[in-house]
Amino acid sequence: MKKIGILGGGQLGRMMIQAALSYDVEIHILDPDPEAPCRSFCQYFTYGDFGDFDTVFQFGKDLDAITIEIEKVNVDALDSLLEIGKTVFPQPSVIRTIQDKRTQKNFYQAQNIKTPPFVLVDRPEDVAKNQSFLPAFYKVGKGGYDGKGVFKLDKLEDLPPDVSFPGLLEKKVAIEKEISVIIARNKEGDVQVYPPVESVFDPVLNLVDYLLAPANISSELAQEAEDLARQVIASLDMVGLLAIEMFLDTQGQLWVNEAAPRAHNSGHHSIEANYTSQFEQLIRALLDLPLGSTQTREKAAMVNLIGEKGAPGPTFYQGLDQIMQREGIFVHLYGKRQCKPGRKMGHVTILHKDKTQLIENIEFVKATLKVQADSSK
Amino acid sequence: MKKIGILGGGQLGRMMIQAALSYDVEIHILDPDPEAPCRSFCQYFTYGDFGDFDTVFQFGKDLDAITIEIEKVNVDALDSLLEIGKTVFPQPSVIRTIQDKRTQKNFYQAQNIKTPPFVLVDRPEDVAKNQSFLPAFYKVGKGGYDGKGVFKLDKLEDLPPDVSFPGLLEKKVAIEKEISVIIARNKEGDVQVYPPVESVFDPVLNLVDYLLAPANISSELAQEAEDLARQVIASLDMVGLLAIEMFLDTQGQLWVNEAAPRAHNSGHHSIEANYTSQFEQLIRALLDLPLGSTQTREKAAMVNLIGEKGAPGPTFYQGLDQIMQREGIFVHLYGKRQCKPGRKMGHVTILHKDKTQLIENIEFVKATLKVQADSSK
Repeated sequence: MKKIGILGGGQLGRMMIQAALSYDVEIHILDPDPEAPCRSFCQYFTYGDFGDFDTVFQFGKDLDAITIEIEKVNVDALDSLLEIGKTVFPQPSVIRTIQDKRTQKNFYQAQNIKTPPFVLVDRPEDVAKNQSFLPAFYKVGKGGYDGKGVFKLDKLEDLPPDVSFPGLLEKKVAIEKEISVIIARNKEGDVQVYPPVESVFDPVLNLVDYLLAPANISSELAQEAEDLARQVIASLDMVGLLAIEMFLDTQGQLWVNEAAPRAHNSGHHSIEANYTSQFEQLIRALLDLPLGSTQTREKAAMVNLIGEKGAPGPTFYQGLDQIMQREGIFVHLYGKRQCKPGRKMGHVTILHKDKTQLIENIEFVKATLKVQADSSK
Repeated sequence: MKKIGILGGGQLGRMMIQAALSYDVEIHILDPDPEAPCRSFCQYFTYGDFGDFDTVFQFGKDLDAITIEIEKVNVDALDSLLEIGKTVFPQPSVIRTIQDKRTQKNFYQAQNIKTPPFVLVDRPEDVAKNQSFLPAFYKVGKGGYDGKGVFKLDKLEDLPPDVSFPGLLEKKVAIEKEISVIIARNKEGDVQVYPPVESVFDPVLNLVDYLLAPANISSELAQEAEDLARQVIASLDMVGLLAIEMFLDTQGQLWVNEAAPRAHNSGHHSIEANYTSQFEQLIRALLDLPLGSTQTREKAAMVNLIGEKGAPGPTFYQGLDQIMQREGIFVHLYGKRQCKPGRKMGHVTILHKDKTQLIENIEFVKATLKVQADSSK
């Protein structure tokens, strides 16, 4: 029985365990949180820091294959595991290229992959020197996560004083839509691409409201986005799963925004909406098995369940009963004991053949299901 | 977070864990096999005998809800758990009625549920006394499993000398088809019925060859089978999942053969072929959540992966790569370390819109994928 190790035991690891249960494989998890979502569903849970060389090396040295659910890991340890003959997918070199947005952007430029223009900035003074480049986004090179570490600069004064460096300035693109393409590649170089999905924003809150799969774009554009994804994963020569966020600008042009070499929030719908989920696809790649079909079974939307405002506390789900009474609604709760404002606590996938009904069900789920701290406990 | 306990940690428990990972729930397993399929995917694994009163009571007393994946459990302990306020589904009384085929048959008779005629026999002499009842099947009352404990008697001499008693003689029905209906019922009495499935037998080997879902029967007969399932679960006043095996005779009449108050082999296809899998349905019932839709997403077949003939040994899968290259083929390996002849080692679900292609893929899977002991280890 093969032993797969995952650095990180959050919801992505949890859904990988769910997929792995269909195979003859053992899953080992390394996570610093003793209450991580994988904790109660994994016999082989190691409590430890995936940023520490020795911890990662010791964790991986007796396993067959190692992968990640977060980029912020100790890549040197993964290099050493590779050297002693372990399978490490994505390859450490790929994580290194991607985990720093500066090397990631340089890589796209070197490979002629269309990405918004940028300049590297090592310190605050460099931002001032490049004032003519504004309006732009300032992005912290390393450690940004879930939109953290990204700041919109219309003028110099918009840069927060406590922001960390080095980073980069990136030109604002006139965005028509934000789309995402998930692509899988195995050792043989076989590739399977998921149809592009679309992030639908709330125009008032300017937050991702829900995800629509497949994206509401022309088949030509979908093909172009898939080809771009193929180009990126081939350039990286990577094995595993790559999520590529793209901008479609108002001129109908596609730009690569950034990529994540792992399972991704924009692929959660694939559990119900595609023949092979993104999680199973990664397990297949790690076990060196043929990749599965990424064909769409049914149109879907995905709504993230985010911890409501208020004090942190024990997780409480309001409205679960009501939403589960409707057909075509699939709940995924991540089992996080503490609900915190803004924390990803779960997601809901909604299937419906009829577009109007689909939108109605999205609104129903958003209005009805709330994850909050239970103040009575 | 609710704690659910399962008596038994085999493949059924494993697929329940897989479904439970979508909910905020903790799964506890009790199994006498330290290498049970649930072992590596369950943080709360208790090694112990589910037939022992104290073991079962101690296991269940700190949990919220208890269920089973096998009927051969200590029902007295479940009664005691019920008495101290635990949720036990199926109810102990239901397990008691079903786990002895004699009480099960008496129950059907008392409830006017159509079942093949039978006589109870307490000892070998009773069989002789009922010679005029032959040809018939002799069925051992308690402990029969997977076809074990059932003997076809054309004449008295066909009864094996070492067979255990008490049991029953059951009239042979002229079978046209064997079908199975899985039905779920929650605390509120809401019911969801899966479309009937059909066991297709190999005419030469007289073994179940594959399972076809939905069954190839008229919609009137399907409705009749579903209504019969509703009658059985309502008569039992049971909460949980009930699999009812039925005979369709050559006159077009339906008979209840026997039932299992748990997830069942004839419902495995529901993972891919229906909107809600049988495993998720049971989790929903245990968590007192609304039951999900049992509607068919796509036509399916299910092939069991049975350990090949030969000496027991470490499990080895031959042909996995080849079958996974085809679309619409979903592999479920149970992670059993020891392969034994005749042991259920996994199953494969095959989806295909086209019937001819479906049959071709069934034959391909059966011819290509073999689970056997690895003699080199």
